[in-house]
Amino acid sequence: MQLYSYFRSSASFRVRIALALKGLPYDYSGVHLQQGEQSQPAYAEEVSPAQLVPVLRDGDALLTQSLAIIEYLDETHPEPPLLPADALGRARVRALAMDIACEIHPLNNLRVLRYLVHEMGVAEERKDAWYKHWVESGLAVVERRLAGQGATGRYCHGDAPTLADCVLVPQIFNAQRFDCRVDHVPTVMRVFDACMQLDAFRAAQPSACPDAQ
Amino acid sequence: MQLYSYFRSSASFRVRIALALKGLPYDYSGVHLQQGEQSQPAYAEEVSPAQLVPVLRDGDALLTQSLAIIEYLDETHPEPPLLPADALGRARVRALAMDIACEIHPLNNLRVLRYLVHEMGVAEERKDAWYKHWVESGLAVVERRLAGQGATGRYCHGDAPTLADCVLVPQIFNAQRFDCRVDHVPTVMRVFDACMQLDAFRAAQPSACPDAQ
Repeated sequence: MQLYSYFRSSASFRVRIALALKGLPYDYSGVHLQQGEQSQPAYAEEVSPAQLVPVLRDGDALLTQSLAIIEYLDETHPEPPLLPADALGRARVRALAMDIACEIHPLNNLRVLRYLVHEMGVAEERKDAWYKHWVESGLAVVERRLAGQGATGRYCHGDAPTLADCVLVPQIFNAQRFDCRVDHVPTVMRVFDACMQLDAFRAAQPSACPDAQ
Repeated sequence: MQLYSYFRSSASFRVRIALALKGLPYDYSGVHLQQGEQSQPAYAEEVSPAQLVPVLRDGDALLTQSLAIIEYLDETHPEPPLLPADALGRARVRALAMDIACEIHPLNNLRVLRYLVHEMGVAEERKDAWYKHWVESGLAVVERRLAGQGATGRYCHGDAPTLADCVLVPQIFNAQRFDCRVDHVPTVMRVFDACMQLDAFRAAQPSACPDAQ
């Protein structure tokens, strides 16, 4: 398999964690988003018309959207499972993942921040406030869910990492990089710390990527 | 089952379509987002701390996040299936759904538009341009995928509706309501028209909801 990734992309980070948890080897292809490599024809025409990372190549197939890629990996390489065995548990894990992947992350990715600044003329400090607002309010929702539900264990769901942890950890990296508050989300941070004790999460982190700068 | 929904919420609309395709009866509970019902204690504390719709109550369980709810419905009520039988097909359908649910819709929901206007002081016409930008550019990505891949059939994937169609149709309703261009996405619109010939899609549309105004 081949993964098109950018070391700082949290969507790429999610897939790197899943690949590492499953012990799957892959070739790493860096796509430098800050330098616009995602818009160059070799990538935009041949790999990702959406000009996004990550993309996973598996044989002839090109797979996009990080959560869909992780579900695919879980179906094709079931061990260790990244979703619980029961339908309600799977729904909870997917909803936790989407609380971040649909409610927080889309508002703060690079193309959106650029649009705010370049197309809407938003000042830097207002852009930063926007970033923090969605991270801090979004994480508060995740905190309430994790702290209030018995299904939460050492990790987001029970005592083994799942899809939800693959999504949570990169969001916390972003929160810390942009100096967002995290003192209001102690359960989130406890889970984050538990994840970061695992080799798979450490091996997938941005600073461990071949294209890290 | 009980569905907390708002007639204009496209995330709610997705779940209404899935329930209708599967022929599942449910009680409809309207949550009036424009009037702030999602922030009232009865809802925010008892049903949805995230103050979002939809929420599906199934027995004692409260399920959130529209795509997670639809996956749950597909697992617990498998007929007719809303995901293909093969892993690559499922990955494609999920990715198509997420091209909309993660790349377009989160940028244009009500709380985000309100934040732009009230917290960032963005003028109405710039807010409208923001809305159209993400819809029109995001749909162009979906168009390229649908037009360029042999797996596309009468619907997004083959000749039976899937999760991807449950997400596509509400996005087109939004695009039309906000007067976005759709003439650059003929395949998307062909699929939309095919879906709207089905009773399930028509029965789930905003104007058919008990809380429609």
